[in-house]
Amino acid sequence: MLITPGSLLATINTPDELRKLDKSLLPQVADELRQFIIDDVSVYGGHFGASLGVVELTVALHYVFNTPDDQLIWDVGHQAYGHKILTGRRDRFHTQRFYKGLSGFPKRKESVYDSFGVGHSSTSISAALGMAVASQLQGNTQRNHIAVIGDGALTAGEAFEGMNHAGATDSNLLIVLNDNCMSIDPNVGALREYLTDITTSHTYNKVKDEVWNLLGKMNKLGKTAQELVSQVQSGIKSSLLEQSNLFESLHLRYFGPIDGHDIDHLVSVLDDLKNIPGPKLLHVLTVKGKGYAPAEKDQTKWHAPGLFDKVTGVIKKKVYDSPQPPKYQDVFGNTLVELAEQNARIVGVTPAMPSGSSMNIMMKAMPTRAFDVGIAEQHAVTFSAGMATQGEVVFCNIYSTFMQRAYDQVIHDVCIQELPVIFCLDRAGFAGADGPTHHGAYDLAYMRCVPNMIVAAPMNEQELRNMMFTAQYDEVQQGKRAFTIRYPRGEGVMPNWRTPFEKQVIGKGRMIADGKDVAILTIGHIGNYAVEAAQMLAKEGIEPAHFDMRYVKPLDEELLHQIFSRFNRVVTVEDGCVMGGFGSAILEFMANHGYMARVKRLGIPDAVIEHGEQLELHHECGFDPQGIAEAVRELLFAGQPVAV
Amino acid sequence: MLITPGSLLATINTPDELRKLDKSLLPQVADELRQFIIDDVSVYGGHFGASLGVVELTVALHYVFNTPDDQLIWDVGHQAYGHKILTGRRDRFHTQRFYKGLSGFPKRKESVYDSFGVGHSSTSISAALGMAVASQLQGNTQRNHIAVIGDGALTAGEAFEGMNHAGATDSNLLIVLNDNCMSIDPNVGALREYLTDITTSHTYNKVKDEVWNLLGKMNKLGKTAQELVSQVQSGIKSSLLEQSNLFESLHLRYFGPIDGHDIDHLVSVLDDLKNIPGPKLLHVLTVKGKGYAPAEKDQTKWHAPGLFDKVTGVIKKKVYDSPQPPKYQDVFGNTLVELAEQNARIVGVTPAMPSGSSMNIMMKAMPTRAFDVGIAEQHAVTFSAGMATQGEVVFCNIYSTFMQRAYDQVIHDVCIQELPVIFCLDRAGFAGADGPTHHGAYDLAYMRCVPNMIVAAPMNEQELRNMMFTAQYDEVQQGKRAFTIRYPRGEGVMPNWRTPFEKQVIGKGRMIADGKDVAILTIGHIGNYAVEAAQMLAKEGIEPAHFDMRYVKPLDEELLHQIFSRFNRVVTVEDGCVMGGFGSAILEFMANHGYMARVKRLGIPDAVIEHGEQLELHHECGFDPQGIAEAVRELLFAGQPVAV
Repeated sequence: MLITPGSLLATINTPDELRKLDKSLLPQVADELRQFIIDDVSVYGGHFGASLGVVELTVALHYVFNTPDDQLIWDVGHQAYGHKILTGRRDRFHTQRFYKGLSGFPKRKESVYDSFGVGHSSTSISAALGMAVASQLQGNTQRNHIAVIGDGALTAGEAFEGMNHAGATDSNLLIVLNDNCMSIDPNVGALREYLTDITTSHTYNKVKDEVWNLLGKMNKLGKTAQELVSQVQSGIKSSLLEQSNLFESLHLRYFGPIDGHDIDHLVSVLDDLKNIPGPKLLHVLTVKGKGYAPAEKDQTKWHAPGLFDKVTGVIKKKVYDSPQPPKYQDVFGNTLVELAEQNARIVGVTPAMPSGSSMNIMMKAMPTRAFDVGIAEQHAVTFSAGMATQGEVVFCNIYSTFMQRAYDQVIHDVCIQELPVIFCLDRAGFAGADGPTHHGAYDLAYMRCVPNMIVAAPMNEQELRNMMFTAQYDEVQQGKRAFTIRYPRGEGVMPNWRTPFEKQVIGKGRMIADGKDVAILTIGHIGNYAVEAAQMLAKEGIEPAHFDMRYVKPLDEELLHQIFSRFNRVVTVEDGCVMGGFGSAILEFMANHGYMARVKRLGIPDAVIEHGEQLELHHECGFDPQGIAEAVRELLFAGQPVAV
Repeated sequence: MLITPGSLLATINTPDELRKLDKSLLPQVADELRQFIIDDVSVYGGHFGASLGVVELTVALHYVFNTPDDQLIWDVGHQAYGHKILTGRRDRFHTQRFYKGLSGFPKRKESVYDSFGVGHSSTSISAALGMAVASQLQGNTQRNHIAVIGDGALTAGEAFEGMNHAGATDSNLLIVLNDNCMSIDPNVGALREYLTDITTSHTYNKVKDEVWNLLGKMNKLGKTAQELVSQVQSGIKSSLLEQSNLFESLHLRYFGPIDGHDIDHLVSVLDDLKNIPGPKLLHVLTVKGKGYAPAEKDQTKWHAPGLFDKVTGVIKKKVYDSPQPPKYQDVFGNTLVELAEQNARIVGVTPAMPSGSSMNIMMKAMPTRAFDVGIAEQHAVTFSAGMATQGEVVFCNIYSTFMQRAYDQVIHDVCIQELPVIFCLDRAGFAGADGPTHHGAYDLAYMRCVPNMIVAAPMNEQELRNMMFTAQYDEVQQGKRAFTIRYPRGEGVMPNWRTPFEKQVIGKGRMIADGKDVAILTIGHIGNYAVEAAQMLAKEGIEPAHFDMRYVKPLDEELLHQIFSRFNRVVTVEDGCVMGGFGSAILEFMANHGYMARVKRLGIPDAVIEHGEQLELHHECGFDPQGIAEAVRELLFAGQPVAV
């Protein structure tokens, strides 16, 4: 179903067409764009509040700048719905986030207007600076390079690294700070407090108004851009005598704060800034969820609310006849509090994902013992290591895909030092609709090669609870190894999941079902697919044995010796990259011990897998239940092992 | 040979003994400590300038603070020689950086005074904050937590992430900013310029003097710490009206700048700060190489000068009768300029390693096309990606161990987007004396599992040149894959290394020597060991075939089919982790194609390998020439493959 655009929006198929409109029509464009987003997301789902907050900014940027020649980068990108709709993708927009449909994020392959692919936060300044420097090298001094970055994303170190470099260049870079006080959850940290300070300071605003007035006056006098710049600079300099500014400390010219919903003012300010060369920052104040009352009120809930009734603002929830399995993240969140009630040394750390990881349960129950450190994965891990040196038992929860950003800290600060930090990697495997930037595809490979590291994955809720229980156990903590537990986005399989805790033996797998001819070795939740596959195969008279290995590292060598003594055909299944992952660990065991067998490894192939429902992607990669069954059949009936 | 300490230094075996001395004796302690470092490093080598620069600071910190109960963290740690000498390691100090000797960096296992292991930069604030928060949770409000961080290290994002979190806490954290204007090379970026601005601003210093005078007066009046704090705060507040400050923007109380070589003043300032709770930053100005004239004069050269005559200041260089092979880094640096002269689209990027990577050759020859972005690996990679979107051919040179810090950017910004950035990973394999924090042990494993990635390693200088030539080739750039070339620290094997360029076929290996019974498959420089091993074995009548695979990804499948058709005994050799590395890639090929063979994989085992000469470490891990030969013998004579 196509969403019907408003009468003006319907005429805009490219930003060129937008730019032909009279400025006075832009508020209407913004209104229609906002309504289009509401209409679409209420029916098709997706991110919501962030895009509503930048509707006016989106229209103004495309109106003022000559996209796609001017390069526009949306940091993170979940706020870029308006951008997509205005850049030729309106009629396909309802396919967004669905399998084979548009991506939920800007993506270079999808459109020339998507200058840089995004998904993880805080890359936009570095990327835009790279483009700006390239333009300089290529002799293009007119092109503009614009990074739109939120105040949440600004807390990540890479944004600071980018600003530190940008401020030492004369590149043609405009950073638009989209300040809405939010990450997915409320933004935290000293920078947040600072932005509030400068936003509410009367002295500061007075000084800034004077600069703006100066700018306005000069424009009317018909000064050249060059004169304008020099006078504005001296205007800023004099204001600096009264009050300096963090961004100006980094040699970025600071402008603002201005109202991000006043489209007329936005356009005139951006028009002025276009003529000012060099790196600069415009501070824009916006409201996440702007224009849709329920979303303005509860911004975390409406970050990505699912489907809803756009008239009543009621979020639609599926109704079930029977109790359903919980989300893994909620099992984590609730179990953490249970354990922390028993073990006073337990603390929790999340980098800006309190609600996404369900760490918010502990933050509410034990506010002094659970820490949201902002979008700052590197800091989160070293901070955890610091606490671990003092005997704290740290559960550091980071999405698998975001842990890539703290890989050095895992190696350098945790594992080399033998600190028993517990890493819980949510959203491991396919992230689903968020797509390739968010898939947790590589964690088994990049974590298992690090010494002093345990890597586990639970097949169900009970296993997750027991792994968490085991990891915080005093004797295990004394073992001085980091403990990674990775689990997928979404629900488990046990409606009655509050099982009593049982300590596991580190590195011990288990047999799910005995069988003959072939052994299926699985790791984590995906093991449930193997159970289904075995049921299919049973109907054909094939009875595979199924082992849930539980631990990728250390491997259960005792169990593997039994398996390879009995089976010469083995299928391994993981929802991670097959290159270097769990299946490769099994091959290494075989090589170390001289076992020969035919091994078929199922998992994520060496390719960028796009977005879609998890099951659709599992099917595409051949490790859904049908795929596993088919692999077993192939292995059984496709001839004998090759002998040399 | 023990270095003889001065008469006062000889009496100091622990900081407790230092603290018993009268304050008037501290300059003498500092002088003797400086002389001890000069005496030692001139004879035994190691880092030099950084430790000389903090001699007074080191003495003052241990004099004022109650180490090890107070927690002192030296960021990076190559400046911690004085710290080691004062904390019970004076008599073993000459073993530093030698195999089985003391580490060149603070290390928790080595001493209770080493609160946190370091090596990579910019971790200290996060770690100290973790400790400070843990102390609070444990009810210890008296303990001090001190991070000493250089202005170079402050440019890395993690330091900013740590400050952003710290400023929002009331933790008992003191950040000592050791400002010497240097990384290994001169520090760059906007922050550097800012620090110079505030250091040289008369207004600013005047205001600060007033605050300090206030502090001094109050001390003399015998005020309590509480009163002191409140009055100092209001003093600062009033100064803020005149000039704000980047650190105060982040809610860190800022003190300084003060002279880091005035030990008397340092002690009194630190004494005052001890009584001020909450997060704070002391800006200390030091001179790298202080007290040794040649080192003050050429700070980059004297960062780690090697052995030298301490009287004349002449650095000792080995003299050879014949031309020697160059360092790989110099082959990289010179070849890059050669290629860039032919290809106008080539640019170079280094995160603060111009001299270490030899990128300084291009920075000198083509200053507009080579970029030192500061200690900022994440930014370096995304910045490279941004340039690549505009058609620039980017050689981004990052030490293998530091690339761990930009792993997410490699995946998210480069490979998912199919951008053909060329990564040159120097110091791959064992870093040698720098030890486990600096070993480039994991790169083959963590790079090869990423899609759209080529991973290569040259066996010699010619191969490195040809791989660089190939990577920048237009047709290869159009292939839209990132191209990783990893090579070791130190020298190659070809005195005449300026060979003509030859384009390689991506993923093609080569036969070094034919043989029978067993095949040795190597990757990279370590292949030269296999040549030696083959010579040893030849004397015993064993003739292994030897293949230099060149590419870990894509593998040369054609060659591998030939190999596994002929050999059922294979040894793989890599100077990287065996878990998930090159050897595992070979096992994956075998499994994919149903080959059965006995494979012995040599490489870095799943353990933290300490420091030492590269050859010592290769021997320890069993892949020096003798180790390779022994593996071949074992494989040949240790029985038949196990068949099930």
